[in-house]
Amino acid sequence: MSELFRIQLKVRDYECDLQGLVNNAVYQNYLEHARHEFLLSRGVDFAAMAQRGEFPVVVRAELDYRKPLRPGDGFFVTVRCSMEGKIRMVFQQEIVRDDGVAMLQARFVTTVLDARGRPRIPEGLVQRLAD
Amino acid sequence: MSELFRIQLKVRDYECDLQGLVNNAVYQNYLEHARHEFLLSRGVDFAAMAQRGEFPVVVRAELDYRKPLRPGDGFFVTVRCSMEGKIRMVFQQEIVRDDGVAMLQARFVTTVLDARGRPRIPEGLVQRLAD
Amino acid sequence: MSELFRIQLKVRDYECDLQGLVNNAVYQNYLEHARHEFLLSRGVDFAAMAQRGEFPVVVRAELDYRKPLRPGDGFFVTVRCSMEGKIRMVFQQEIVRDDGVAMLQARFVTTVLDARGRPRIPEGLVQRLAD
Amino acid sequence: MSELFRIQLKVRDYECDLQGLVNNAVYQNYLEHARHEFLLSRGVDFAAMAQRGEFPVVVRAELDYRKPLRPGDGFFVTVRCSMEGKIRMVFQQEIVRDDGVAMLQARFVTTVLDARGRPRIPEGLVQRLAD
Repeated sequence: MSELFRIQLKVRDYECDLQGLVNNAVYQNYLEHARHEFLLSRGVDFAAMAQRGEFPVVVRAELDYRKPLRPGDGFFVTVRCSMEGKIRMVFQQEIVRDDGVAMLQARFVTTVLDARGRPRIPEGLVQRLAD
Repeated sequence: MSELFRIQLKVRDYECDLQGLVNNAVYQNYLEHARHEFLLSRGVDFAAMAQRGEFPVVVRAELDYRKPLRPGDGFFVTVRCSMEGKIRMVFQQEIVRDDGVAMLQARFVTTVLDARGRPRIPEGLVQRLAD
Repeated sequence: MSELFRIQLKVRDYECDLQGLVNNAVYQNYLEHARHEFLLSRGVDFAAMAQRGEFPVVVRAELDYRKPLRPGDGFFVTVRCSMEGKIRMVFQQEIVRDDGVAMLQARFVTTVLDARGRPRIPEGLVQRLAD
Repeated sequence: MSELFRIQLKVRDYECDLQGLVNNAVYQNYLEHARHEFLLSRGVDFAAMAQRGEFPVVVRAELDYRKPLRPGDGFFVTVRCSMEGKIRMVFQQEIVRDDGVAMLQARFVTTVLDARGRPRIPEGLVQRLAD
């Protein structure tokens, strides 16, 4: 399992919906952005993968919403990555408000599809991500 | 458990990301919109609830991504609602492309918070939704 | 100038922000979607253009916000297209609530870039769009 | 006219569309976020205004798209505010990539509506913003 990676973010007003809280779908944006920044920190560029015909995809997402983020809240998003078998990468993630309160826990099961749509983890990717 | 409810939608180009596919977070938008239309069809107005100090919230979301929607795809989103105990409503949902292929299955565990943030399903809501 | 094209839409709750109104940026989504549907109605597929290395781009956008759309509002979006010189297509657009009230007027100046980033309207496009 | 205010941001992959570029509507998100951060820096909280029944609204937006932002680009957004007559605040904004290239210029004409929907700039707001 990888070391804990984290990025620091702040709620933007347009991310809040008519309840005055961050909309449920927006957390997926935060979590995806954190995963892609984690990949970049390991030398893996998501946008470049797509151009090469390697398509990282989410197979399953589980999100446990604990407390809602509000306008102006500062928070960080964590990422931990591990392999599950030979073709699945699992990301454990958490969103924590700056005062230390856990807002959300999530688990993403992902794989990489080749140009024909078959699951195939590109060579070297596991070494880059898993340590 | 409620009868099957469904709405018809079409992918909009701005909902697709640099992979040329509908972004993972956008499916949550589709699913939320279908749930709110389901509520409306039962005489329950989400926006009006928020103004009354009743806050429907998602506690847990599970999404199984089967196949990706692409630009121009037509599809429908289904909703089925049931109670789980006294304070939890569970929504089973599916996204199906117009040619009948299942793209995504999802399950949302929700509750309603009162103005003090305590779970409390408003009187009459269960009768409206569950049949 | 082209004949008037229009699409019918409905506000989705997630498109509203903490003011309880459709967020300003979302109108650009509606307008873009209407333009792309207009293109499709003329046999021009935006997503396919991008894959061929033809990139329609907005050069300038002007939006006059008259009244805000609210949760549940039904509305339609109109499109009218005309050429301005040889490399610019101009879209006049309007958003009108179902009761006939004009909510927004907009004007988009656009062009098409080739793979090297130079403005070049593909052959035949003008004929397809302008009549 | 106010001193130049600026915030630093970075493109997130989900903000890019099927052209592989930041979607046109997303720039409005960036620009709104920068305006709200500018307001905050002057002690004016947009979310709190909405709760008090003061609704800042955009009346007109003009955006000149110069060059597109791409995945991973770092950039900053500037804000300059001035009064135009007694009920209109004008924001001049620019988006500049980290290497100094100007990507977009924009101008937003705004006002504040009271609970009855009439334009009325709250007392003291002009002094806070204009210097």
